[in-house]
Amino acid sequence: MYGRLMLPELQVLLAENDITGIQEFCDALYPAVTAEILSELESQNVWRVLACNSPEKQAEIFQFLDLPQQIEIVGVVERGPLSKLIEEMAPDDRVDLLSRMDDERVEELLPLIAQAERSDIRKLLSYPEDSAGAIMTTEYASLPEDLSVAQALEKLRHQAPDSEIISYIYVVDEGRRLQGIVSLRELIFARPTRPLSELINRDVISVRVDDDQEYVAQQMAKFDFVAIPVVDNQNQLVGIVTHDDAIDIMQEEATEDTYRLAAVEPLEDSYLSTSLKTVIQKRIGWLIFLLVPSFLAAKVLQHYEGISDRYEWLVLFIPLILASGGNAGSQSATLIIRAMALETNIDKGDLTALLRKEIQLGVLLGGALALISFTVALAFTTQMIQATVVGLAVFLVVLIGISAGGMLPMGFRRLGMDPALMSNPFITALVDILGLIIYFQVAMAMVS
Amino acid sequence: MYGRLMLPELQVLLAENDITGIQEFCDALYPAVTAEILSELESQNVWRVLACNSPEKQAEIFQFLDLPQQIEIVGVVERGPLSKLIEEMAPDDRVDLLSRMDDERVEELLPLIAQAERSDIRKLLSYPEDSAGAIMTTEYASLPEDLSVAQALEKLRHQAPDSEIISYIYVVDEGRRLQGIVSLRELIFARPTRPLSELINRDVISVRVDDDQEYVAQQMAKFDFVAIPVVDNQNQLVGIVTHDDAIDIMQEEATEDTYRLAAVEPLEDSYLSTSLKTVIQKRIGWLIFLLVPSFLAAKVLQHYEGISDRYEWLVLFIPLILASGGNAGSQSATLIIRAMALETNIDKGDLTALLRKEIQLGVLLGGALALISFTVALAFTTQMIQATVVGLAVFLVVLIGISAGGMLPMGFRRLGMDPALMSNPFITALVDILGLIIYFQVAMAMVS
Repeated sequence: MYGRLMLPELQVLLAENDITGIQEFCDALYPAVTAEILSELESQNVWRVLACNSPEKQAEIFQFLDLPQQIEIVGVVERGPLSKLIEEMAPDDRVDLLSRMDDERVEELLPLIAQAERSDIRKLLSYPEDSAGAIMTTEYASLPEDLSVAQALEKLRHQAPDSEIISYIYVVDEGRRLQGIVSLRELIFARPTRPLSELINRDVISVRVDDDQEYVAQQMAKFDFVAIPVVDNQNQLVGIVTHDDAIDIMQEEATEDTYRLAAVEPLEDSYLSTSLKTVIQKRIGWLIFLLVPSFLAAKVLQHYEGISDRYEWLVLFIPLILASGGNAGSQSATLIIRAMALETNIDKGDLTALLRKEIQLGVLLGGALALISFTVALAFTTQMIQATVVGLAVFLVVLIGISAGGMLPMGFRRLGMDPALMSNPFITALVDILGLIIYFQVAMAMVS
Repeated sequence: MYGRLMLPELQVLLAENDITGIQEFCDALYPAVTAEILSELESQNVWRVLACNSPEKQAEIFQFLDLPQQIEIVGVVERGPLSKLIEEMAPDDRVDLLSRMDDERVEELLPLIAQAERSDIRKLLSYPEDSAGAIMTTEYASLPEDLSVAQALEKLRHQAPDSEIISYIYVVDEGRRLQGIVSLRELIFARPTRPLSELINRDVISVRVDDDQEYVAQQMAKFDFVAIPVVDNQNQLVGIVTHDDAIDIMQEEATEDTYRLAAVEPLEDSYLSTSLKTVIQKRIGWLIFLLVPSFLAAKVLQHYEGISDRYEWLVLFIPLILASGGNAGSQSATLIIRAMALETNIDKGDLTALLRKEIQLGVLLGGALALISFTVALAFTTQMIQATVVGLAVFLVVLIGISAGGMLPMGFRRLGMDPALMSNPFITALVDILGLIIYFQVAMAMVS
C-alpha cells in the first residue's frame, strides 16, 4: 500500500539509470517495504535495483521477497554477484532458496561461497523438509560457562552482529552441548564481576533437529518464546528457530488444513504464484476420486427406481436430503479438525465428550431442520404423510451427517493419520449415499 | 504430555495438603507446564495450588490457562486474593479476563486494585474488541531522548522488570509522542558516554490504537518484528503488541476463516470448551438459511417434472451434477479466500489474472470430469445420447461452479466485505440450482 505509492519514483530512477538515486531510495525504506515495491518489477529490473546496494543490503531486501520470485531472480544473476548475495543471506533463508534451485546450479555456486558458509549450507540442506533442522538458523549467540558477566558481554560484542536474536544467550560446554540459557536482560543488569554460571537457567526447553516444524511452532506458541534452541541427538546446540518462523509455519499449516478441508492438496507457494499445471495436479485427483460416490449414488437411485417412479414427489427433495446431511457434516468435521489442530493435548476422554456432544447436536439440529423441512414440504405436496417422510428423512440424515463428520476425523487420528486428510467433500459424499438410502427406506416404510 | 505425567504427583501433594511441597512443585516447572497440569483439575483445586505461591508466580501460571478456565477459577476466589492476582497479571491478559467477567464483579474488584493498575485497566477496557488497543500491553520500556547511553541503561534497570520485551526501547518526547526506537543490542554495545539520540532509529513502523488486530499481526509478520508500538491519534505511545499476541491472532483469524468456509459462525473459545447451546447458536442460522436453496432446487425439479418423468435415467445423475459443481466450486472459493487472507496486497490486476486462471481451470477440469462421467454413464444407460447429456452437463456445471467459486469471494471483497463470509456450502447451494437448470435444459435440447 505504502510501498505501491513509491513504485513510479523507482521506475523513474531505473529509466534514468540513476545508481546513486536507487541506492538512496533503498536506504530510505525498510527492507520489507523495498521488497514489496520490487515484487511489482520484472526480475531483470529487480536485480538492477539490488545491484546498486552492498551485498548485505541486497540480502536484507531479497529475503523479504516471495520464494518463487527469489528463484526467478537468481535465474538472471551472474554466478559471482549471486554467490556474494547468498553468502550474506540468513542461513535458514538461503537454504530455503538453494533447496528449490536446480542441483546443477547449486553445485556451480557452492565453490564460490566462503568455506564456513559453504559447510553450513551443506549441513542445513541435509535436514529433511519440514523438520526443525530445515527451518532453523545457525546465527545465534552462545557462550561457554566459565566467564564473568563482563567477559560474557565482551565476547557477545563480537558475536552479536551475526546473531538474529540475542534476547537469549545459549550456554554450551566444550562439546557444544546445551547447558542452559541466560537472558540478555539479566546479563546487562548483573554485576560485571559476577560469574555467568550464577545467571544460567538450566531448565531449558529445546526441540530436536528432526522434530516436525508444526511441533516446533506449537512449543513456541505454548511457551511464548522469542526463539527456541535446536539440538541434535547428542544434545549439541545446532541452531535456533525464531518467532518469525513460528508465525510462517502456523500460517502454512493453517493454509494446508484449510485446503485439505476443501479437497485441495497443499500448494508449495501462494495460489497467485502457482502455475496452472500445478493447480490442476493439486485439484484433479480429489475431483476424480469424488466422482466415485456420485456414481454409487446413481446406483442407489437405480435400485430405488421402482418407488421413485411411483412417488414422483420423492425426487423433488433429493437436493434437500443431500444438502442438509452434507452441510451439517461439514460443520462438524471442520470444528473437530480445527480443534485437533489447535489443541495439542486432546486425550481419549475429550474425544468421548466430543462425540457425545456431536450426537446431542445431531438430535437437536436435526429436529429443528426436520420441523422446517416438514412445514415447507407441505407447500409442495399437501399430503401430511409425504411431508412426514421428508421431515423424518432430514432428521435422520442430519444426525448421520453430524455423527460421520465428527467420527471420521477422530477415526483418522486414532489410526495415527492426520485428521485433516478427511476432506469435507468426501464426508459429504459418504453422507449423500447413506442419506439417499435412508430417504427411500423411510419412504418405502411409510407410503408403500 | 510431559505435564500429564506429573499430575498424580500434584494430586498426592493436594491430598496431603502439603503447601511447601506444592510451592516447590510450581517452582520446579515452567509456568506453561504447570498451567497444562492445572487444566486437568477442578477450579477449587487449581486455586488451592495457586494460593501456595506468591501473587507474581500465581499470575505467571494463571496467564497460561485458557480464558474459559480462568473465568471459572475467578468464580471461586475471594475478592482479596483475586485483586492481588489481577494486579500482577500482564495488562493485556488481565483486560481479556475482566472484559469477560460480570460487570458487577469487576466493579467490586476494581476498588481493591492499586490506583495505577486500576486506571490502566479502565483505559484498556475502553478500546473496541479486536483492536490494537484491546490486545496491546502497557508494559514496555521507554526513555526520553536527552540521555547518555550510560544514563539510559541506568534508567532501564528500574523499568526492565516490568517490561514484557526490551529488545526494543521506545524513545518519547515530553508529551509521550513516539520519536523513535533503539535496539537493546545497540545500546549495550555503544560507548557509555555516547548520547542516546545518536542511536535512535527515527523511521518507526507503528500501528494506531484503533487498527484491527488482523492488520497489526500482518504488519508484524511482514516486518518480522518482535513487538510493534501502538500510538493514539496524537502519536502518543500507548502500548506495544508482542510477537506471542501476533501468533495468537493469526491462529484466531485462521480458525475464523476455516469455520466460515464451513458455514459455522466463529466461536469465542475453543470448540472443546464451548457450551452445547452456543455451538447450536453458531451453527443453526446457516443450516436454516441453507435450506432455502434446497427448496428452490425442489421448485426447479418440479418445473422440469415433465422431462424427468419421460426420461427417468435423468434422475440417476442428479447427485453427480450437484456434487461435481459443488466440489469444484468449493476448491476455487477456498483457494481464493485463503489467498486473500494471506496476501495483503492483492490488486485489481491480480484479481483479473486470478479470474482468467479460474476460467481456464474450469474448462480443463470440467473437460476431464465430463469425459469420465460420459464413460461411466454409458455403463448405466447404454445410449450414447444420454451419456452425452450427462458429460456435457458435468462440463458446464464444473465450469460454472469454478467461476462462481472464484468470483463470489472477489465480489464480496469489491463490496468491501470480508471474502470469508462467503461459505462453501452457500456457493455449493447456488451452483446446485444453476446446475439443475443447466442439466435439464441440456437434456431438453438434446433428447426431446
